[in-house]
Amino acid sequence: MNDCVFCKIIKGEMPADKIYEDENYLAFLDITPINPGHTLLMPKKHYKNLYSLPNDVLNDMALLIKKIAVAVKQAVSADGINIGMNNEQAAGQIVPHVHFHVIPRFLNDGHRHWHGKQYPPNKSKEIAEQIKKFL
Amino acid sequence: MNDCVFCKIIKGEMPADKIYEDENYLAFLDITPINPGHTLLMPKKHYKNLYSLPNDVLNDMALLIKKIAVAVKQAVSADGINIGMNNEQAAGQIVPHVHFHVIPRFLNDGHRHWHGKQYPPNKSKEIAEQIKKFL
Repeated sequence: MNDCVFCKIIKGEMPADKIYEDENYLAFLDITPINPGHTLLMPKKHYKNLYSLPNDVLNDMALLIKKIAVAVKQAVSADGINIGMNNEQAAGQIVPHVHFHVIPRFLNDGHRHWHGKQYPPNKSKEIAEQIKKFL
Repeated sequence: MNDCVFCKIIKGEMPADKIYEDENYLAFLDITPINPGHTLLMPKKHYKNLYSLPNDVLNDMALLIKKIAVAVKQAVSADGINIGMNNEQAAGQIVPHVHFHVIPRFLNDGHRHWHGKQYPPNKSKEIAEQIKKFL
């Protein structure tokens, strides 16, 4: 897409610190990393998000994510790795070109995880039943 | 594994609000959800994390994650979906049995994303080269 910043990087119209590239996929460093080594992986073809991503593309990406996670962990001597994918603006998706985040983590790096709340009685059963209807 | 809480749920020794189950995989609601509908997907066989997960298991999980994401979004009328996987304690992995999080998000639900920092000059090139050595 013409106005997509990731498409511009893919087409070579904008620079990026690439770490992996093949015919269909590209991975490069996030320019504002959560920690150094934070990498983004995306298909070269423009898809918005996970919901409509073709299965073959999703499978290719899953295997690449594993390879990249292992490499990033070794390269920056990380203590852990977060894999993330934000779908839609409400979930923190800034660029609407589907991508996975590979984020190296370090003990005591200060990034705090969101806190969950407990369900009121019986509410979780009701929601589980509701989800099952759509599966 | 005997002391693994997810293995206990898989074996039926502990309760859970299941939303999907087949021969090899199980998905149920997180008991302390970030938002209602927050779901965990895991293989029934115990693997610790992503690094050594067999490719066929990873591919199965990726396709299930997409299905679950679409179903959860519809079931709770979410505005977005986060997919997450925490590998090792430093990355927030609490139960060392590999699992994906599917987290429904709502506009203005108050969960804030981590802020990134910019790299000092030339540092990103150096890190990219380092990662490429391990790929």
